[in-house]
Amino acid sequence: MATELDVPTGRPAAIPTPAPGDPRLAQLSLNQATTKNWTLAEAADGCARAGIPAIGLWREHVAEVGVPRAAKLVADAGLRVSSLCRGGFLTAADHAGQRAALDDNRRALDDAAALGTDTLVMVVGGLPEGSRDLAGARRRVADRIADLAPHAGAAGVRLALEPLHPMYCADRAVLSTLDQALELAAPFPAAAVGVVVDAFHVWWDPRLLPSIAAASDRIASFQVCDWVLPLPSDALLARGMMGDGFIDFRVLREAVEAAGYRGDTEVEIFNADIWAAPGAEVIATVARRYVTEVLPQPS
Amino acid sequence: MATELDVPTGRPAAIPTPAPGDPRLAQLSLNQATTKNWTLAEAADGCARAGIPAIGLWREHVAEVGVPRAAKLVADAGLRVSSLCRGGFLTAADHAGQRAALDDNRRALDDAAALGTDTLVMVVGGLPEGSRDLAGARRRVADRIADLAPHAGAAGVRLALEPLHPMYCADRAVLSTLDQALELAAPFPAAAVGVVVDAFHVWWDPRLLPSIAAASDRIASFQVCDWVLPLPSDALLARGMMGDGFIDFRVLREAVEAAGYRGDTEVEIFNADIWAAPGAEVIATVARRYVTEVLPQPS
Repeated sequence: MATELDVPTGRPAAIPTPAPGDPRLAQLSLNQATTKNWTLAEAADGCARAGIPAIGLWREHVAEVGVPRAAKLVADAGLRVSSLCRGGFLTAADHAGQRAALDDNRRALDDAAALGTDTLVMVVGGLPEGSRDLAGARRRVADRIADLAPHAGAAGVRLALEPLHPMYCADRAVLSTLDQALELAAPFPAAAVGVVVDAFHVWWDPRLLPSIAAASDRIASFQVCDWVLPLPSDALLARGMMGDGFIDFRVLREAVEAAGYRGDTEVEIFNADIWAAPGAEVIATVARRYVTEVLPQPS
Repeated sequence: MATELDVPTGRPAAIPTPAPGDPRLAQLSLNQATTKNWTLAEAADGCARAGIPAIGLWREHVAEVGVPRAAKLVADAGLRVSSLCRGGFLTAADHAGQRAALDDNRRALDDAAALGTDTLVMVVGGLPEGSRDLAGARRRVADRIADLAPHAGAAGVRLALEPLHPMYCADRAVLSTLDQALELAAPFPAAAVGVVVDAFHVWWDPRLLPSIAAASDRIASFQVCDWVLPLPSDALLARGMMGDGFIDFRVLREAVEAAGYRGDTEVEIFNADIWAAPGAEVIATVARRYVTEVLPQPS
């Protein structure tokens, strides 16, 4: 049997790929963004073959087959749905834009419920075109969360507010820290509004560990990918395979567990080199690196 | 007279360039990084001709002529020195690296005093090669500040701790927020350890306004340049001319003034297009944009 090579470095794997049924994979989830060029059917099949028991779905991929078919594909593959990505984009300053955002997010909540997940990941949106009113954009996010929370509660799906790295503050998400997400969530039941802890976005935060402890049962999702340098020309694709960068994932995993989180770890990597690699090799590397970089080290 | 054009956009200037002696320029400082290709003599001469009364010096430029000559060039041009950039790089884990950093920073403090400024800007350094121990690197920064504070107090120069944007956390500065800087500074007299408020690095911070208010007499420097997108391939050159990006400088300027800051506003822009432009055009644009983007709007 040929030596397995890690994606995207091409270096030999440090451990054999865990076989399907390996208990170490019991809480691993593949976020579809990691295998962007796979259809939902391919991703579901890939997870099943690799023994990855859960999947984070993206609405674009779901839309290609429709919600009922997507739900059936995932169920037939025996997978849990750890989250649906994504709702959000709530910063519009005009009435039409706000109305459209609310309609879209209510649809997303209903889709999440139909797909069998209780977690809708929310990327809240950046500054509207031409605006520098950051405080105003943040206020509108709070207002839209208040508009959506009742629908979330009724649908049994949490709005999972995702702080994005501050380098995306202008154009993607004016929600920049976990503390800020917790403050936004605080007025609502934890079952309606939670938070996402994505290692890539929050690893640098000096307040991270106390914030995670405070998050407690608000933690709706734990996502991982690494901070690698240099940043690529498209900053949205700046994410790396766990172990290739600067993040100590074990510290974060321990913190979310100590806070009471018992859900899956979703691997979500936006990276052009990883997208160019064969999906099966990508998820084999994901499984290995999850074991060596995220799970507790064998004592 | 030909219409003046802004650098680097090439668009017509919105206002005439303020003439030397214009009271609106009374607290404007040119940080030498903005005119990187000018020698210190050229920058001093450029400021004097443009009526910019203060300059932020860089050690590289100072080293080209030596400290005594640099001090004389600046004094002969009639300029204040608003800061010396920069000390720092305090995260070494080994004894030799720590010793070298302390020696270098003590020299920098002495140089600052000799150059007539009470402010040494500190970029604290990123993770040491191969390390993912962010908490450890941060602890070492605190330890080195404690080592240096007595020398700073004796020299009459403040260690001005600069939080850098979190996108530089891995490789440039594990100091990422103003709150974190204030916590580092708290054990020491405000005259020995202060903080820098650089709009580019902190504008996204949801805690920024209360943090600035809390900073009070710790604020040693206020720097401005804009957040522009897309990020360039070299993220260190990601800075824009005020008005070309997403930052509302007036909000920040008002906040530092309300906190009691009465010092200069330093314009520090790392940007390849600006460096490629003639220095005199750069500082004319700087002066205009300072008036239109940073100073209070005429009522």
